[in-house]
Amino acid sequence: MTPIYDRVALIGLGLIASSMFWAMKRAGVAGEVTGYARSEETRDTARRIGLCDKVCDSAIEAVQDADLVVLCVPVGAMGAVAAEIAPHLKPGATVSDVGSVKKSVIEAVGPHIPEGVHFVPAHPMAGTEHSGPESGFATLFDNRWCLIVPNGADEEATARLERFWQALGANCERMEVEHHDLVCAVVSHIPHLIAYTMVGVADDLSRVSDQEVIKYSAAGFRDFTRIAASDPTMWRDVFLTNKDATLEILGRFTEELFALQRAIRTGDGDELFDYFTRTRAIRRGIIEAGQDTEAPDFGRVQAKE
Amino acid sequence: MTPIYDRVALIGLGLIASSMFWAMKRAGVAGEVTGYARSEETRDTARRIGLCDKVCDSAIEAVQDADLVVLCVPVGAMGAVAAEIAPHLKPGATVSDVGSVKKSVIEAVGPHIPEGVHFVPAHPMAGTEHSGPESGFATLFDNRWCLIVPNGADEEATARLERFWQALGANCERMEVEHHDLVCAVVSHIPHLIAYTMVGVADDLSRVSDQEVIKYSAAGFRDFTRIAASDPTMWRDVFLTNKDATLEILGRFTEELFALQRAIRTGDGDELFDYFTRTRAIRRGIIEAGQDTEAPDFGRVQAKE
Repeated sequence: MTPIYDRVALIGLGLIASSMFWAMKRAGVAGEVTGYARSEETRDTARRIGLCDKVCDSAIEAVQDADLVVLCVPVGAMGAVAAEIAPHLKPGATVSDVGSVKKSVIEAVGPHIPEGVHFVPAHPMAGTEHSGPESGFATLFDNRWCLIVPNGADEEATARLERFWQALGANCERMEVEHHDLVCAVVSHIPHLIAYTMVGVADDLSRVSDQEVIKYSAAGFRDFTRIAASDPTMWRDVFLTNKDATLEILGRFTEELFALQRAIRTGDGDELFDYFTRTRAIRRGIIEAGQDTEAPDFGRVQAKE
Repeated sequence: MTPIYDRVALIGLGLIASSMFWAMKRAGVAGEVTGYARSEETRDTARRIGLCDKVCDSAIEAVQDADLVVLCVPVGAMGAVAAEIAPHLKPGATVSDVGSVKKSVIEAVGPHIPEGVHFVPAHPMAGTEHSGPESGFATLFDNRWCLIVPNGADEEATARLERFWQALGANCERMEVEHHDLVCAVVSHIPHLIAYTMVGVADDLSRVSDQEVIKYSAAGFRDFTRIAASDPTMWRDVFLTNKDATLEILGRFTEELFALQRAIRTGDGDELFDYFTRTRAIRRGIIEAGQDTEAPDFGRVQAKE
């Protein structure tokens, strides 16, 4: 494939950036890829494992002559990085990001972007519970969604970024800023918060040992622990910056949970049954939409005799 | 293997019973297996797919001469079934069950068990989101836990049941009644209730379409929908019968959730970071305990270039 961008700069070298690098190499969509991470240890690791064609010791050096600069730092750090690199961006370049929240990133980064540079926010919806420069892999984005939130950006620059993400394996979809933050609160942010909470409750309970929790975790709890193992810095920033949407969904969640709690307390079996039947139907919809397979694996392969 | 029981009767022919049948055949631990289900449709299906050596048209016929009778009906139906079969149990036989709650099952079933028959409650901690006679498979219990709650039962009968479950692939552990119900509330019942609730919230939200929820469900939400697709009748009965423990854990859960909600509202990033760091450590413990693999799959296989 002909490179879509001659020179790409990755600022921040964690799970997403390192996966982007390997996916770019797989697809051949970038001429040269430079990288920068704030921590010296991360830069050393990147050099050791061959992550990026060139690892730079400053963000300013990394963005020099870059046609695409991707901010891959936690959402709360985007503004400061943008302010630092802004004067050094090449005219006509595109700045993008991979943050899980878009409104606050646009507010923090947007004002720093100079005239003649395009800012096209994006959000690849992919990840694992691992983090750091060694956690990336080329197939992370395959068949995942990358939400593009142009927010008025130049159409040509937007379309080019879309082609880039598609070459990395993702499906792209454009979305309005506030709608993006609400959808992500529902499908990702609140599920993560809930998983964190449940794992915390289990750990706190003195009458049930951690060892027991761990031993019997296959029974529904294991999926929660996997979600709850994600990067603490990233998730802290998500909740601090997507405050409105997460608080709204959280309010709805506790309202529903209280209704079910009341049904348990009063012994209202019909309400519980109806609720559980309704949610089962939603799962069917997910399987029909091809987002998951029918086969239950629960951690291993199913086999009939 | 020599049969551990010459004749086994399965009352109720859903996911657990059908998996037990295929696992018994694989291990050769039962001479003859009879089965009974209340619904004629289920009995017809069982006959068609060869589930059980003999499908009977009454529970009374099924337990005739059985050395082991396993109650595989929803927890709320155990008492009525026990009352019906009690006069027809063979002296020296063992009655067991597979209910997810033990205190209420013991209270409902125990009084019906005649002198000379052993009652050894058990709880195989295994399942999928599918239900019914066609959902079973021989490997369901492999390497899973089966909790045995003897509650004063005869030692020989208890040890025999343990050998039986081990032959079906499970690891056995004995537990006190109330402790069992508390541990299961933490690792299984409340995680299920939470998953049901979150899926319900997503479905209710008019500004986010079901289609969007489904489309982007890979991002944390998908694990919830899988859990929330489990059998509604079974879960209704679990919450109705394990009321005390589930309400206690639910109270703790909402308390913790409110603390995190408050941290989001007040912008207390340190509290969020500390909480998320602590839960991440618990996940590490689970991996070290061998209950899950290190490799993140999130629905597919990871591959580095």
